[in-house]
Amino acid sequence: MAKIKLSDIDTNAPKKLDKDTTKAETKRLLEELDELQNLLYAQHKWSLLVVLQGMDASGKDGVVRNVLGQMNPLGVKVQPFKAPTEEELDHDFLWRIHQHTPRKGMIQVFNRSHYEDVLVQRVHKWIDEKTVYKRMDAINDFEKLLTEHNDTHILKFYLHVSEDEQTKRLEERTQDPRKMWKYNANDIKEAKLWKEYRKAYEDVFEHCDYVPWHIVPADHNWYKEHIIAKTVRDTLKDLKMKYPEIKDK
Amino acid sequence: MAKIKLSDIDTNAPKKLDKDTTKAETKRLLEELDELQNLLYAQHKWSLLVVLQGMDASGKDGVVRNVLGQMNPLGVKVQPFKAPTEEELDHDFLWRIHQHTPRKGMIQVFNRSHYEDVLVQRVHKWIDEKTVYKRMDAINDFEKLLTEHNDTHILKFYLHVSEDEQTKRLEERTQDPRKMWKYNANDIKEAKLWKEYRKAYEDVFEHCDYVPWHIVPADHNWYKEHIIAKTVRDTLKDLKMKYPEIKDK
Repeated sequence: MAKIKLSDIDTNAPKKLDKDTTKAETKRLLEELDELQNLLYAQHKWSLLVVLQGMDASGKDGVVRNVLGQMNPLGVKVQPFKAPTEEELDHDFLWRIHQHTPRKGMIQVFNRSHYEDVLVQRVHKWIDEKTVYKRMDAINDFEKLLTEHNDTHILKFYLHVSEDEQTKRLEERTQDPRKMWKYNANDIKEAKLWKEYRKAYEDVFEHCDYVPWHIVPADHNWYKEHIIAKTVRDTLKDLKMKYPEIKDK
Repeated sequence: MAKIKLSDIDTNAPKKLDKDTTKAETKRLLEELDELQNLLYAQHKWSLLVVLQGMDASGKDGVVRNVLGQMNPLGVKVQPFKAPTEEELDHDFLWRIHQHTPRKGMIQVFNRSHYEDVLVQRVHKWIDEKTVYKRMDAINDFEKLLTEHNDTHILKFYLHVSEDEQTKRLEERTQDPRKMWKYNANDIKEAKLWKEYRKAYEDVFEHCDYVPWHIVPADHNWYKEHIIAKTVRDTLKDLKMKYPEIKDK
């Protein structure tokens, strides 16, 4: 696989695309998604794992709220992964992740994920390079396990924002009373490691490819939400699911 | 790896070995084990996972009671694996197993394990042969994950009893009031699949070899317990553990 260069990929919506038309189309997709999720739940064969990754303020929460959170919460769970607890650190890095993989019929969303263990820990040099590559191999094995042994379909999204857009959004958090709760002085420090993070992400795209990545231009929320709604819709539709019939009439 | 034939391996203790001398030696080993377990707990770096497999009545409970259960229960946990629950069946076969892998400093004992998923399910043809081999690959990946990413040392024991000895022990369960609670009519049916189980075990020894197997002659409990005590002692001793010193005197 040729190495992906994030700097070669546009973070903007395509210029020719009309915002209002696209938003209307997304709305229609969400209705379709609601029905597909019901079918997934009813058939109880497949499951879907959606992994959301991206820099701070890349809009992961917005995807949860405006796209994935629009379906029936009976069949959709969201798990955020923050700094690991003491008990979690006493196990392999996939231990806490595996516990939250979806049951048959369910959609599970990871807001951040096992990928943090080859991103934040690498950028801060808390682990050596040999460990990074061993972990990336282990991640491939893990995603293979879920795919082959539980009919779990995995979708991995990288929300691709520009450095300028991120700076703007982080500043908003210091001004807008509705956003201040998200402010974390540490995010400013992390943003300074922009280049290192990008490099680490590029390596992840190249090596953790048992399941391919979707790189989503994310400077415009309406476009990002459209792409994700469309990708999830296409994925579920491709499963060609059917409602089960009554067995013992 | 040359294929192991269980029929070529004696289920008896070596003839020249004296029972009383061996039992005295096991007692000494258990004292040493108690100290080594304390060191493992104190150092909080390594962990030990002991997997016990074997036919019904091969003496797994006895190993837990008389060997592994002789150490401080603060640092030793035992997890039996029975038929999976509905929730467990809705996940990949390693999901319920992973949850019980040991924390740093701990000894975890599995009474039966993930190997049941390539033994009982295969013998009864509940899964096809392709799935069996995929599962065995996944087991190797899983044991590699624990070994490489959490300093977990894995010891796998197959308790090797003869068909005659098993029949004798299953009959005892119908006679001895202290053993009747273990009686299960299903065990008699399973025992009739002796050849199929042996074949499935031989395949497991050959394919699931990321961590090697210990085949323990188990017709004599005193010998079986001695071998296991000695193997665990040797394993813990080889870790060359040290008590941590006080950092900030």
